[in-house]
Amino acid sequence: MPDDAPVLRHDTDGVTTLTLNRPRHFNALSEEVIAALGAELDRLAGDEDVRCVVLAAEGKAFCAGHDLKQMRATPDKAYYQALFARCGELMQAIVALPVPVIARVQGLATAAGCQLVASCDLAVAAHSARFAVSGINVGLFCSTPAVALSRNVGRKRAMEMLFTGEFIDADQARDWGLVNRVAEDDRLDAVLGELTASLCAKSRVALRTGKAMFHRQLTMPLEEAYAYAGETMACNMMAEDASEGIDAFIDKRAPRWRHR
Amino acid sequence: MPDDAPVLRHDTDGVTTLTLNRPRHFNALSEEVIAALGAELDRLAGDEDVRCVVLAAEGKAFCAGHDLKQMRATPDKAYYQALFARCGELMQAIVALPVPVIARVQGLATAAGCQLVASCDLAVAAHSARFAVSGINVGLFCSTPAVALSRNVGRKRAMEMLFTGEFIDADQARDWGLVNRVAEDDRLDAVLGELTASLCAKSRVALRTGKAMFHRQLTMPLEEAYAYAGETMACNMMAEDASEGIDAFIDKRAPRWRHR
Amino acid sequence: MPDDAPVLRHDTDGVTTLTLNRPRHFNALSEEVIAALGAELDRLAGDEDVRCVVLAAEGKAFCAGHDLKQMRATPDKAYYQALFARCGELMQAIVALPVPVIARVQGLATAAGCQLVASCDLAVAAHSARFAVSGINVGLFCSTPAVALSRNVGRKRAMEMLFTGEFIDADQARDWGLVNRVAEDDRLDAVLGELTASLCAKSRVALRTGKAMFHRQLTMPLEEAYAYAGETMACNMMAEDASEGIDAFIDKRAPRWRHR
Repeated sequence: MPDDAPVLRHDTDGVTTLTLNRPRHFNALSEEVIAALGAELDRLAGDEDVRCVVLAAEGKAFCAGHDLKQMRATPDKAYYQALFARCGELMQAIVALPVPVIARVQGLATAAGCQLVASCDLAVAAHSARFAVSGINVGLFCSTPAVALSRNVGRKRAMEMLFTGEFIDADQARDWGLVNRVAEDDRLDAVLGELTASLCAKSRVALRTGKAMFHRQLTMPLEEAYAYAGETMACNMMAEDASEGIDAFIDKRAPRWRHR
Repeated sequence: MPDDAPVLRHDTDGVTTLTLNRPRHFNALSEEVIAALGAELDRLAGDEDVRCVVLAAEGKAFCAGHDLKQMRATPDKAYYQALFARCGELMQAIVALPVPVIARVQGLATAAGCQLVASCDLAVAAHSARFAVSGINVGLFCSTPAVALSRNVGRKRAMEMLFTGEFIDADQARDWGLVNRVAEDDRLDAVLGELTASLCAKSRVALRTGKAMFHRQLTMPLEEAYAYAGETMACNMMAEDASEGIDAFIDKRAPRWRHR
Repeated sequence: MPDDAPVLRHDTDGVTTLTLNRPRHFNALSEEVIAALGAELDRLAGDEDVRCVVLAAEGKAFCAGHDLKQMRATPDKAYYQALFARCGELMQAIVALPVPVIARVQGLATAAGCQLVASCDLAVAAHSARFAVSGINVGLFCSTPAVALSRNVGRKRAMEMLFTGEFIDADQARDWGLVNRVAEDDRLDAVLGELTASLCAKSRVALRTGKAMFHRQLTMPLEEAYAYAGETMACNMMAEDASEGIDAFIDKRAPRWRHR
């Protein structure tokens, strides 16, 4: 992978870091960045060595959303339909990935950049990070970001952000549930490292089972959700890692997962 | 419009203020108030000059809910069915209005009064405002208010309010997501003005598109929500305001919306 | 009921307290505890004298989840399916009970123990209480607890708890909406008593109507929810307690409910 690829991949001890690499363009989601990030996620979906994924970004901004210049260059509805369809698939690929995905946010996360954060399972932000769904300021309501945002924060808060385009800071984002943890800027990787270390110590089959199950049951009525969750948990009990984990717990020793 | 109309309308610079005007009855939602407010909302739905709506109230209370005396005067199930149906239509008319609706809350907002706040897209409250769904205290569970409330705050919080009938103060309402901003009592209109000014500076077509889209996608499964949002955003891109807004952004100038 | 029954029942002034009574096993949800608690809830469902239910626990822990030793003793998928089905029915029986159910939480509430808290309508926690969905630590993702948890707290918070297995303290649980009130440890029963006294002062028919209605409307689209809630409220208005409650309110006297 060349150093100037739109998205860089770095693997270390089960943690795969995907880094948006267009810092001079505030890592805008141009066609090439969407394609590159989508391709990396596709590859990761089948990679049994990966335990968790960090979505990071190079430079002063996390991601400034779509590439507005590129979008204006092709004023064609079919083009826009295809573009937003691909972007929506990208966001859903994060949700569908069998391992947890953590956003590592520094600087600005705006519009589809804020949507990336909302689409990740977890998010850690630098104290100086700021978040907005600011399309409304250019006459383009952040409709696709709204899908992810409104599934992270309460609806009056989501509407305030969407209707005003105003920024919230990292503490506000944590208090509203858009990010999990806020770190002093120079402690961002340390705090992120605590989270990835915790995830890497877990059974891969249990995390995979659980992540898929979590997202799927969210929109089910209670009875259906319990039927599905109960069946999922019975299957999970039959997996080798559950036997090993429970036996280790009873024996007061550390578990040895099958797929380390 | 006479000064003693049940609901007053005042227009200034794109902001339409509807004021509940039965202060001696704590602005209870009597038949006449429901009818008057519903009629005003109907008229506003087709008014292209309106940029945002403020729902305000005269006197010491915002709204004390239904008019219990009037309700008891006609102890008839068909009457109650029609009354609650009309009230539910009123709340849904706020959601359906093409422009943002902001509650301006002072004093008490109880039962259907609290429901009005929850039904608005945004809410600004005076520091001394208080909120309750207190029907349970008179043996009448706030069922219709529960619909709006449970779509604003977490369910244990909603149940606590509904089962106990107890008040929460303005800061609690903000922390739980029922209101967006809390102002010192003498700063209520100043804080409200910041919000209306922000909304009035936006493209009307973008706000209209976005508000309708936001509410509609909330109950969709993720894939369906993205398909709908992507299509909505592609249409939004074809609107004149989006071209103008993006061009203005690229040129670093203020946008000139078509429908000012 | 013998003193060593798996679940103890105690009735006083309309408050029924069910106490998990296996403190040496951290009140784990063994087959016998699930069966005993289920049987008590079944009995309560038809008991007209009960105004609210407290779910409490003996000893240093509230509930440590499933009995892992017992589960490992029968490594059979059909056994697990039946076990999780019964446990899911238990949680849904709490939701379906016609009176409010309040969790009284001291010490640890982990895995299905945390699910019990999430499944109750309300929860009061001692300051020293701690909450986790820690199955992931033994290779068994807390799938069924996730159903209840994700209906109490925001999804990034739920995922953090489920993926890391880490504890949150009582204040965090309150700030996230998993519990309603936190009391100093020696004030737990005093704070719980304020809540039960408030519930016992309410009309039983109104609470019953309201609780069922609240849970049922949560997953409905807005229009359907309003149609259902409006019909429910019209029926509630025809109940004797509503007439009495409203008349008492108008006359500025205390209401006399029919079913005290």
